[in-house]
Amino acid sequence: MLQAAIVGATGIVGQQFVLALQHHPWFRIAALAASRRSAGRKYGEALRDPATGSLRWYAGPLPDKTIFDLPVEDAETLAASRFDVIFTGIESDAAKVLEPQYAKSCPVLSTASAFRYEDDVPVLIPGVNDDHARLIEQQRQQRGWQGFIAPNPNCTTVGLVISLAPLVKIFGVDTVVMTSLQAVSGAGRNGGVLSLDIIDNVIPYIPKEEDKVRREVCKILGQVTATGVEPLPVRISATCTRVPVMDGHTASVLAVTSRQVSIAEARQAMEHFGREFVELGLPSSPHQFIVVHDDPYRPQPRLDRDTDDGMATVVGRLRADTAFDHGLQYVVLSHNTKMGAAKGTVLAAELLVHKGYIG
Amino acid sequence: MLQAAIVGATGIVGQQFVLALQHHPWFRIAALAASRRSAGRKYGEALRDPATGSLRWYAGPLPDKTIFDLPVEDAETLAASRFDVIFTGIESDAAKVLEPQYAKSCPVLSTASAFRYEDDVPVLIPGVNDDHARLIEQQRQQRGWQGFIAPNPNCTTVGLVISLAPLVKIFGVDTVVMTSLQAVSGAGRNGGVLSLDIIDNVIPYIPKEEDKVRREVCKILGQVTATGVEPLPVRISATCTRVPVMDGHTASVLAVTSRQVSIAEARQAMEHFGREFVELGLPSSPHQFIVVHDDPYRPQPRLDRDTDDGMATVVGRLRADTAFDHGLQYVVLSHNTKMGAAKGTVLAAELLVHKGYIG
Amino acid sequence: MLQAAIVGATGIVGQQFVLALQHHPWFRIAALAASRRSAGRKYGEALRDPATGSLRWYAGPLPDKTIFDLPVEDAETLAASRFDVIFTGIESDAAKVLEPQYAKSCPVLSTASAFRYEDDVPVLIPGVNDDHARLIEQQRQQRGWQGFIAPNPNCTTVGLVISLAPLVKIFGVDTVVMTSLQAVSGAGRNGGVLSLDIIDNVIPYIPKEEDKVRREVCKILGQVTATGVEPLPVRISATCTRVPVMDGHTASVLAVTSRQVSIAEARQAMEHFGREFVELGLPSSPHQFIVVHDDPYRPQPRLDRDTDDGMATVVGRLRADTAFDHGLQYVVLSHNTKMGAAKGTVLAAELLVHKGYIG
Amino acid sequence: MLQAAIVGATGIVGQQFVLALQHHPWFRIAALAASRRSAGRKYGEALRDPATGSLRWYAGPLPDKTIFDLPVEDAETLAASRFDVIFTGIESDAAKVLEPQYAKSCPVLSTASAFRYEDDVPVLIPGVNDDHARLIEQQRQQRGWQGFIAPNPNCTTVGLVISLAPLVKIFGVDTVVMTSLQAVSGAGRNGGVLSLDIIDNVIPYIPKEEDKVRREVCKILGQVTATGVEPLPVRISATCTRVPVMDGHTASVLAVTSRQVSIAEARQAMEHFGREFVELGLPSSPHQFIVVHDDPYRPQPRLDRDTDDGMATVVGRLRADTAFDHGLQYVVLSHNTKMGAAKGTVLAAELLVHKGYIG
Repeated sequence: MLQAAIVGATGIVGQQFVLALQHHPWFRIAALAASRRSAGRKYGEALRDPATGSLRWYAGPLPDKTIFDLPVEDAETLAASRFDVIFTGIESDAAKVLEPQYAKSCPVLSTASAFRYEDDVPVLIPGVNDDHARLIEQQRQQRGWQGFIAPNPNCTTVGLVISLAPLVKIFGVDTVVMTSLQAVSGAGRNGGVLSLDIIDNVIPYIPKEEDKVRREVCKILGQVTATGVEPLPVRISATCTRVPVMDGHTASVLAVTSRQVSIAEARQAMEHFGREFVELGLPSSPHQFIVVHDDPYRPQPRLDRDTDDGMATVVGRLRADTAFDHGLQYVVLSHNTKMGAAKGTVLAAELLVHKGYIG
Repeated sequence: MLQAAIVGATGIVGQQFVLALQHHPWFRIAALAASRRSAGRKYGEALRDPATGSLRWYAGPLPDKTIFDLPVEDAETLAASRFDVIFTGIESDAAKVLEPQYAKSCPVLSTASAFRYEDDVPVLIPGVNDDHARLIEQQRQQRGWQGFIAPNPNCTTVGLVISLAPLVKIFGVDTVVMTSLQAVSGAGRNGGVLSLDIIDNVIPYIPKEEDKVRREVCKILGQVTATGVEPLPVRISATCTRVPVMDGHTASVLAVTSRQVSIAEARQAMEHFGREFVELGLPSSPHQFIVVHDDPYRPQPRLDRDTDDGMATVVGRLRADTAFDHGLQYVVLSHNTKMGAAKGTVLAAELLVHKGYIG
Repeated sequence: MLQAAIVGATGIVGQQFVLALQHHPWFRIAALAASRRSAGRKYGEALRDPATGSLRWYAGPLPDKTIFDLPVEDAETLAASRFDVIFTGIESDAAKVLEPQYAKSCPVLSTASAFRYEDDVPVLIPGVNDDHARLIEQQRQQRGWQGFIAPNPNCTTVGLVISLAPLVKIFGVDTVVMTSLQAVSGAGRNGGVLSLDIIDNVIPYIPKEEDKVRREVCKILGQVTATGVEPLPVRISATCTRVPVMDGHTASVLAVTSRQVSIAEARQAMEHFGREFVELGLPSSPHQFIVVHDDPYRPQPRLDRDTDDGMATVVGRLRADTAFDHGLQYVVLSHNTKMGAAKGTVLAAELLVHKGYIG
Repeated sequence: MLQAAIVGATGIVGQQFVLALQHHPWFRIAALAASRRSAGRKYGEALRDPATGSLRWYAGPLPDKTIFDLPVEDAETLAASRFDVIFTGIESDAAKVLEPQYAKSCPVLSTASAFRYEDDVPVLIPGVNDDHARLIEQQRQQRGWQGFIAPNPNCTTVGLVISLAPLVKIFGVDTVVMTSLQAVSGAGRNGGVLSLDIIDNVIPYIPKEEDKVRREVCKILGQVTATGVEPLPVRISATCTRVPVMDGHTASVLAVTSRQVSIAEARQAMEHFGREFVELGLPSSPHQFIVVHDDPYRPQPRLDRDTDDGMATVVGRLRADTAFDHGLQYVVLSHNTKMGAAKGTVLAAELLVHKGYIG
C-alpha cells in the first residue's frame, strides 16, 4: 500500500479526501494534518464543535469510526518524506507556502489554484491530458525537487473541458460560449454562500471564476512543449453564475467547431471519448467517461450528478446551433465536489501511479 | 373611463390583470369572464376551493374586496362590443377561438401565443417597437374587424429584446447567444413546475421556448412593411433553463455588434433608451426603462425584479466579450409576471390609447 | 421465488415498488399493471412523454433496462390468482374498487388509505405491531377471501409511531403533541406541491393529514381483540406542515409518559427497540431500527434520511420537557418514500411471508 | 425632530434601522456609528466590498442616496449626550460594553440580548406590555443613569408573545407547546446559515433559542413589581428549527387555557387585541395588531409576512386541540426582521416618546 497524507483534513475538501481514500485499494491514509489549532488532537475531536459537541462532518456519509481516532498532525511541520503522496485541500495562500515544502521530497496532489498557472506545473484531468504528466519531469529538474506539485483544475473547468476534449481532438474548436449554473457547495464553507443570498435567487457573478475557466481550458487542452504548455488557441466567452443547487455544476455550452460536424458525429465522439482511459480500470475511474442523454430534460443536477458515483460527465441537449454554421449546443453537468475536486484528484494520483510518477 | 373586460379572470394571469387594472386611471374593470364552470358566480366564490374554502389568489396582494363581488361572465358568450378593450389571459387553444370572435368588435390585448406569428399581428413591447402598431390597420382591413388582436411576447423574450433594442438601433447586432435562467412562475399553475422537480435542481429545457425567443426577437425588432414585418436578420442561439426562483427571468447574453462598441457607449445606449417613451408618462410605465448596475453581483432576481414595480429591465455585468471582437456580454433581468405578462400588456394598451387605437 | 404484481406501476409509488423489488431475493416482478391508458404497451413506452420522448422516471436511479421491456397489463382485468402477492400504489378511489377484487384470491399490500380504518384490516408497521397480522384471519373469515388487504400507514404516521412505540410499551404514553415538517415528495405528482407554492415558504396545512395521524397512531399501537383493534387511549395533538424539502418527514414531538422516565432510559428504550425484529434478517430490514443522535443539530432530512437506505428511523434532541413533569421532547425523521411508502410495504410483505400469510 | 443615532449601522440590523428611520416623522438620523474599521469613512464607502466594489446592502430596497454620504463615527467614542435616542444593532458582547456607556446620558433601544434578563430592564413589545416601561424608572434610579437600556425581545419570541397575550389576559394560559419554523434571515450574516446547510433541509436546533423564548415570554407577560418583573407562571415547551425560508418566523402553537374557551371567543380576543394601542396612531404601528385567517392554508411566510409592512402578527388554523380539554391550537407568523427586529424597536421608541421617556 502507498502511504498517503491528507493536509487540510478538517476542511470540507479534506473530508472528501478521507471518503475517497478510506477504502482505497492502493492508498492508505497514513496521516491527517491540519492547522496548528487542530494539531495534537484526535481527528474526531478536532472536528467537534466545542460549544455543542456537534461533529462538523460536511462531506456526506460518515467515514469509518477508526478514522476519527487518528491523530491530527501540524501541517507546517509534517515530515513529507514519510509519504508516497500528499493530498492537499487547503486555501491558496497556505498552499503557496506548504506545497513547495512538501514537494521537495514527496508528490503533492492539490485542489488549490496556487500553482496552476506556472509553466512547469501540469493541470491534470485524467483521461483528457494524461500526457501533461511529462511536465513533472521539467518541474523536478527546474526546481530540484524529488517530489512535484500537480493541482487539479477549478471545479467549473472540469465538466467543460471534458465535454470539449473530444470535439477539440476530432473536429477542432475555434470558439466557446459558456454560461455556468453552479452549485453552492463549490464555494465551500469559509466564505461560502449564505442562504439569505441564494434562496429564491441567482447570483450572476463568481469572483475570478470566468478568468480561471478561460485560462485552464486553454492550458489543459494545450500541447506540452520543451518549456511548458502551448495553450490551445480557442476563444472562450464565459459567464459564471450561482444557483440554489447543492451539488453539481451545470453549463450551457456553444462550441463552434473548425469544420462541419453532424450531431451524430458529435455524439459518437463524446461517447467514445475516454474509452482507453476507462479500460485502464483505475480504482476511481468512471465506467463511461461521458454519458450522453437523448431526453431533452437531462442532465439535471439532482438526478444526474451521482452518475458513476459523481465521476462521469453528463451531457444532454446536444443539437445544431441556430446562430453559427459549425455551432454545436449542449448542456453539461459535472459533480463539482467529486470529479471536480477530491475524488478527481485521487483519480489523477491513480494515473500517476500507473505512469510511475508516484510510488 | 374606458371599459375593460378581463377574460380568464380566475387564472393567474387574469388575477394579475385585476391587480394591474383595479386602480387604473384610464381603465375600469367592467367585466370579468372565465370558463362556463365559473360563470354565474361571484368572482370571490369562483376563486374559492370548494373543499377547504381557501381563496385561490395567486397573484400577490389581495385586490379590493369589491372586486370579489363582481359576477363572472361566460367567456364564450361575452358581448365584446360592450367594451373598449378586452384583456385575455387564457390558454392558446381557447385564444384561437375566442380572440377572433371578440376582435370583430373590440380591441383584444392578449398574453397568449396563438396569433403572435401571423403577418398582420403586431407583437408589441411598448417603448421598443411602438411603430408596429401600424399593423393593426393591415389586420383590420384584411380581416374586416372593427377591433384587433395585439398579443404581448413570451415573458422570456421581453427582457432580452429590451436590452438588445438600443444595441440593434445604434450599433447593429449580428449575433446573439443567450442562456436563460427562468423563474417557476413563468410556467403558471396548470402544468406548472412541481416542487419535487426543481428543489435543489435545474431543468435545462423548456418546451418550445427557445424557438419562441428566436422568432419573437426577430419579429419585434423587425421593420413593418406593406405586408407585415420584415424580421431583423440577427442570428440567435438560445438555451432556456428553469431554476428554483419564484419570479424574475435572468439571461446571460452575448451580443456581437456590427461595429466596435465601447462599454461606455453600450452603457449609455442602454441608459438613454426609452427616454422618449418614459416621457409619455403612461400610467404603468417604468421611470427608467433600462437600469444598468456597476455592481458585478447584480442583477439578482430577488433583489432587482421589483425595480419600478417590476416594469424596469435591469442589466449588469456589462463587459467586453473575450471571444468575439465586437462582442458585448451582460446579464439581464426582467420580471416575468409584471413587464413580461399582464402589466406589460396593460402598458401596451395604454400606448394604444395614446396612439388612438383604443377608445 | 414468489410471484409479485405491481399495480399502479407507472406512478411514483409504483416506480418505487419496482426499485424495491427488482433485485429482491424472495419476490420476482411477475407483472406490472396500470390504467387502461397504459395497458398493452411496454413499461418503458408507457413511461415516455409522447411530446418530448422524456422518460418519466421519478423514483431515483433507473431500474435495470429489462424492466422497461415488460408489458403493462390492465389493472381492471388483472388475474390476481396468478400471483403470490400484489403491491398496489394507487389512488384511494381506485383502491376501493380494485383491492377487494384482487383480495378474493391474492394477498394485497397497499399504500392507499382506502381500507386502513376498517376493523378487520391491519395497518402494519413491521417491527412495531407484527401481532396485528392476526387480523388477517378475521378479515378472511368475515369477507370470505382467500387473500387479504394489508395497507401501510400514512407516511407521516410511520416515524411518529416507531419513535413512540418503545415509550408506549415500556413506560406508557398519555399524551402526544406533534408538529410535522413534511417533504414535498409526500404529495406525489398528481396534485403535488407546485414550486410556486413552496419556494421560500411553509404551508401550514395538509388536508386530512392530522386526522389520519391521530387515528393511525392509536390503531397501530392498539391491542388486537376478537373483533378488531382496541385503539391505544393516547391523546394526540397534531399539526402537519409542508416545507421546502424533497424527501424525509421531520416531526417535533412531545410525549408525556405515564411515569417518570430519565433521558437515559428513554434513549435506551429507543435504541433497543426492534432488536428482535432486526434479528429476523428480513431482506429490506434496517440494521438498527431507531438511530439516536447526541448531536443537537441532528436529525436533518438531507443528512439522515438515507440512513440504512431510508429504512431506519432517526431521533435526536431527546431531552426532558420543560412544561410537563413526565414530558420527553425529541425530533424524529423518517424517509417518507422509503420506510414510509413502497419499501416499508415490501418489508411488511417480507414479515407476512415469514409469518406464513404470503406464499 | 428627535435626534437619533444608529450604532452598528453597517450590519444588517443597522441597515434595517436606516430604512425604518430615514423618512420617520419624529426621528432624524443624526449619526451612524460602527466599529473603528469603518469609522471615518462615508457610509456608502464603508458598505462597499473593497475587492469588487459591490455595495453590501442587505436590508431590502436601497435607502435615499444622501444617507450614503453620512460619515461613519466610531461607536466606542460616540458622544451619546448629543442624541435623544440611540438605536443599537450590535452583537451581545459589544452591547455589554457600549450600551451602559451610552445609557449614562441617553436612552438606548437595543436588539441585543445582553441586558434582557436583568431585573430592572424592560423587554418591551409595544401593545403588549407597555406598562413595563415603568421599569425604566427603577433602572435609572438603581444605576444612576440619565438614559436607560430597553432591549427588544428575540425575534422568535415576538409573534408567540403577541398571539398569547390576548389569551393570557382574558382566559389565562397554563401551558404552551411551541415548535418554530424559523427563517434564515434571523441568523444574520455573521455566522449566518450557509446555503449548503439549509437547501433541501431542516436544521432542528438553534443554540440558546428555546431558552430565550421561555424566559422572555414569561418576563414580557409578567407583572411589574417594586423590584422588577414577576414572570408569568406559564409552562412552556419549545422546539426551535430552521427552514429554507428567507423572512418570517412561523410557529405551531398549542396553548392550554385556564378555562374553557370557544374558538369564536379566542378569535375575537385576538382580533380585538391591541385596538387601543393601534388607536395611538404611532407612525410604525400596524393597523390591525393581530390578523386572523379562516383559510386553513394561511398564514404562509411568503404570502403573509409583509402584512401591514411586516408589523402585523398573522394567525391561522385556530382550532380546538384534540389532546387537551382547554387546548387551543394555531399557527402564528411574524416578520422576524421587521416587527421582530429594527422596525419593532423603532415602534418601541415611538411608544416611549408617547409616554415621555424619550425626548
